[in-house]
Amino acid sequence: MNIQSPVGKILEEIHSSLKENFEGALPDYIPELAKADPAHFGITLATVDGKVYEVGDTRRLFTIQSISKPFVYGLGLEDNSRADMLAKVGVEPSGEAFNSISLHPETGRPMNPMINAGAIASTGMIQGVSRERRFERIREMFENYAGRALTVDEEVYRSESETGHRNRAIGHMLRNFGILSGDPEPVLDLYFRQCSIAVDCRDLGVMAATLANAGLNPVTGRRAIRGEYVESVLSVMGSCGMYDYAGEWIYRVGMPAKSGVAGGIIAVLPGQLGIGVFSPLLDSHGNSARGIAACNALSVHFNLHLFNVLHSVRSVIRLKYDGAQVGSNRQRSHSAAALLRELGHRILVYELQGDLVFSTAEVVVRNIAEHLDGVNFVILDLKRVPSLDQSAFKLFAALADSLRDAGRTLVFAHAGGRLRAFFRNRVDKSRAPGWLEFADTNAALAHCEDQLHGVMEIAEVAFEALDVLEDFTTAELEILRGCTSERRHAQGDVIVEAGAEANEVFFLTAGRVSVRLMLENGETKEVGAYLPGVVFGEMAFIDGSKRSASVVADSAVVCHALTREDFERIGLEHPGMQVKLLRNLLRVFSANLRKADREIAILAQ
Amino acid sequence: MNIQSPVGKILEEIHSSLKENFEGALPDYIPELAKADPAHFGITLATVDGKVYEVGDTRRLFTIQSISKPFVYGLGLEDNSRADMLAKVGVEPSGEAFNSISLHPETGRPMNPMINAGAIASTGMIQGVSRERRFERIREMFENYAGRALTVDEEVYRSESETGHRNRAIGHMLRNFGILSGDPEPVLDLYFRQCSIAVDCRDLGVMAATLANAGLNPVTGRRAIRGEYVESVLSVMGSCGMYDYAGEWIYRVGMPAKSGVAGGIIAVLPGQLGIGVFSPLLDSHGNSARGIAACNALSVHFNLHLFNVLHSVRSVIRLKYDGAQVGSNRQRSHSAAALLRELGHRILVYELQGDLVFSTAEVVVRNIAEHLDGVNFVILDLKRVPSLDQSAFKLFAALADSLRDAGRTLVFAHAGGRLRAFFRNRVDKSRAPGWLEFADTNAALAHCEDQLHGVMEIAEVAFEALDVLEDFTTAELEILRGCTSERRHAQGDVIVEAGAEANEVFFLTAGRVSVRLMLENGETKEVGAYLPGVVFGEMAFIDGSKRSASVVADSAVVCHALTREDFERIGLEHPGMQVKLLRNLLRVFSANLRKADREIAILAQ
Repeated sequence: MNIQSPVGKILEEIHSSLKENFEGALPDYIPELAKADPAHFGITLATVDGKVYEVGDTRRLFTIQSISKPFVYGLGLEDNSRADMLAKVGVEPSGEAFNSISLHPETGRPMNPMINAGAIASTGMIQGVSRERRFERIREMFENYAGRALTVDEEVYRSESETGHRNRAIGHMLRNFGILSGDPEPVLDLYFRQCSIAVDCRDLGVMAATLANAGLNPVTGRRAIRGEYVESVLSVMGSCGMYDYAGEWIYRVGMPAKSGVAGGIIAVLPGQLGIGVFSPLLDSHGNSARGIAACNALSVHFNLHLFNVLHSVRSVIRLKYDGAQVGSNRQRSHSAAALLRELGHRILVYELQGDLVFSTAEVVVRNIAEHLDGVNFVILDLKRVPSLDQSAFKLFAALADSLRDAGRTLVFAHAGGRLRAFFRNRVDKSRAPGWLEFADTNAALAHCEDQLHGVMEIAEVAFEALDVLEDFTTAELEILRGCTSERRHAQGDVIVEAGAEANEVFFLTAGRVSVRLMLENGETKEVGAYLPGVVFGEMAFIDGSKRSASVVADSAVVCHALTREDFERIGLEHPGMQVKLLRNLLRVFSANLRKADREIAILAQ
Repeated sequence: MNIQSPVGKILEEIHSSLKENFEGALPDYIPELAKADPAHFGITLATVDGKVYEVGDTRRLFTIQSISKPFVYGLGLEDNSRADMLAKVGVEPSGEAFNSISLHPETGRPMNPMINAGAIASTGMIQGVSRERRFERIREMFENYAGRALTVDEEVYRSESETGHRNRAIGHMLRNFGILSGDPEPVLDLYFRQCSIAVDCRDLGVMAATLANAGLNPVTGRRAIRGEYVESVLSVMGSCGMYDYAGEWIYRVGMPAKSGVAGGIIAVLPGQLGIGVFSPLLDSHGNSARGIAACNALSVHFNLHLFNVLHSVRSVIRLKYDGAQVGSNRQRSHSAAALLRELGHRILVYELQGDLVFSTAEVVVRNIAEHLDGVNFVILDLKRVPSLDQSAFKLFAALADSLRDAGRTLVFAHAGGRLRAFFRNRVDKSRAPGWLEFADTNAALAHCEDQLHGVMEIAEVAFEALDVLEDFTTAELEILRGCTSERRHAQGDVIVEAGAEANEVFFLTAGRVSVRLMLENGETKEVGAYLPGVVFGEMAFIDGSKRSASVVADSAVVCHALTREDFERIGLEHPGMQVKLLRNLLRVFSANLRKADREIAILAQ
């Protein structure tokens, strides 16, 4: 059961509020475009995670026209480089109309790639062994952006080609200044064809969302442009995309955008969403009149202005706790646990969340640098960090160096190999690495706990020092020892099998055992570990359920097994002893419950 | 103990790499500015949470000059409104140099507020009963942005006033077109004075960070401009701030910015940080040469380009779980708990995090709309949501309506009154509100649990049906009943006092009790509650510690108290019964531990 999307509902309201608005006029300078239906009106909003909302005429085909310009400029950047492109086309707004020639008086360089002159110069930079190949490359690029096969509207193409006198004049001016080399006609033909590619309003929304998503089509997952060039494409859209309305557009709507004479507009909110609008009636600037109104309404309704931002950089630190508040999943003896509660504050854990860019990473490194008193280890949990950019890497590298120099250790968890490539490139090879890395936070915590003074020394305990045998008299200890059987296991031995009946409880005096769950994918996952002095296998033994997980020896292990039969026999023969055992077990459970409650309180903060 | 800030370290590297660069020239058209020291060079980076990094000459005073323009334009917006300001000053880039006159040929309206003509027109819009009052208002505004007292550099002011012939010409042209009314001289004098306010590089950084922080000075916490106008100020900076270098600046550096002829530059990364740079040598566009280079380096090093964004909108959902995975802190009888584990999936909890804007709220409402099968209640936990904008409100309101129509309930937790004002304005008064609100998620969960079929019916249990008395024979039940004393409490009675010795354990047969902690501020906090069928006061009773919290009757309560003395007596007289009791207690503890472990696994996801 699904309900109507609240977003779709609001989009429909905006669409119907503008549907009856018939302001503007059809363009007359390309005869084929004058035949469009003035009633057509579609709105598409596509998110960077690939949800596409559509209202109205979103599947009517029209020609892409000038909306092709930023995309072809982007392909030019990929084919040539920023420096080569800047030599041929500027990036300054001209303050003039879309068909102004706007060449630099001395160099002949067009002011920017959004006016026709700059767009033709950009098309001239597309690489390919033949005219056909160059056009195919352009079309394939558009297909990657739109996520479907696209074709040229041959009628419009002929109409443009036959009446494109002004563009031919521009082509020859560009040839005159050497911005185009060779015959301008093939470049002009390529330009006419690129402008005549047929798209629909949905395509525009997805294309815009691809730019919002750093060049990756969020619906198909395919790359349409290398991420490093997206900022350049959006920059020229932002400063020059709406002709002589560019300033007012940014002022009112606040998104990089591009319009086309066939009535399309794309608008991009970087990192968030793309908008495609289609309606053929144009205003005096040559922009779709309903399109402008729709973008305005969307920006106001959904608060989309680029500069209307209120980030909380603080929320990058999801949670911060020390090793006394939350411990690893090692079950340690009462004395080791008491030591950890005393010394655990020497370990600090930062759970980070969201993408790490300069402003979020800065908050993290600053917080760490200011909270080092009495701290030996700083663990950064990157589990909820989808990406780290170079500036975040740089700050963490500088932090790792400073911490090492101050005798502290930076520890990464859940980095998943993302750090290695970076650190390999920059680390001073003559010094030991200033950081550690563990697969997960639990492993990082367990390592740091073991490094704290005295914790590791509790590596073996005598039978009579077991937590669960507190208050036992010497005689009782002897009786109990007689009821248990000492077991020695080698590393890797399975001591308890998941799914088995729980007929024994174990007292661990030496070595380490871990509790392992079998995952659906066949892998095993460690969910806990027990260290000398503790009891294990107690939960299922008590509540009579089957073993929920396996217990495996992580090292050479000595433990003492008490069977249910012997436990019941003790009850009959030495009821006081059984009561002691039960009370001590209750104390262990109580301590574990108190630890769990503390941790829940911290984790749910 | 602190270590050096990694950010400060990198800023120092950038500063020293540019320090020896003496390209550019001092300006000659304002004689006083030609006396500046070409070696001066400072960089400030200020974050939206108020951290200010400074390197180099950040405390040298210089005059603000054209950097005053966007700020005065912002004050003009506050004094007049957007529409009135747009009638007097446009927002289109002129593509021309800073001192170009650039008036519209027919209306005489300056192209934008960043060229001198538009800036003088903006200054003419500042309200105040007298010349002095108008200047004081401008100065106070700058003081709010900078966070300290500011004065005019009288030498520079005189120098500007004496040599400002071009600006006087502009003033009279504006008068000619009626953009200025009355004598232009007082407006020009105000303009010369605003340009002569002395600031330092640190001030610029804090001023820029104030714009980045939606108008709130992040160091002082004082408002410098109403948040709604910040996007307009940043828009004109973005499209026109760097004169005829504006397009290339956005292309290369990618932040709204403004430069001044005395060598200052501010740059703003909205929502993140502000940059102030000072160095008096100017390039051919009239911008600080070292300043441009420093901003370029900062943008590249720290990846600050506005359009280089990769947000993860998905991380808005911090955690999602159902009522079977994590329950309220109500301790319910085994049978009620079993019912909840069966029906709990009808409650869905979304823990949200970060600011809710359109693109993040859209992810939430979409996820909810698509996951309603078998769900009766959707709880939105806003504890980690610092702000919700109007568009998020709108989406939640539409969602609440749709859910109500579909027989579901939307429940807010931790909204803290933020929703009320909004919903009051929009909700259709003829219909019941489609949403519920609770102070915290626990209260919301407890309410929803109680609504699930059958859960509330377990409101009273017989003594013999207590969880902890399972397997007791009728005779044993009679003996135990004789050892306990039935207690009846009225609502509000304190049953257990925090800090007291734990000499009793209680069996609850009717009513509800809650566990309350006394906080340092004198308030009490409910940390748990017990419902009929369960045992309470058991933890301290078992481990012999003092009561860690108080237990209070939330309703009329019937419970049965067992003293430690009687418990020990049972051990002597009926050892088998004591063992049964201990085993049943262990089972209760074991069930609680398993629940806690499940919850830790969910919460630590």
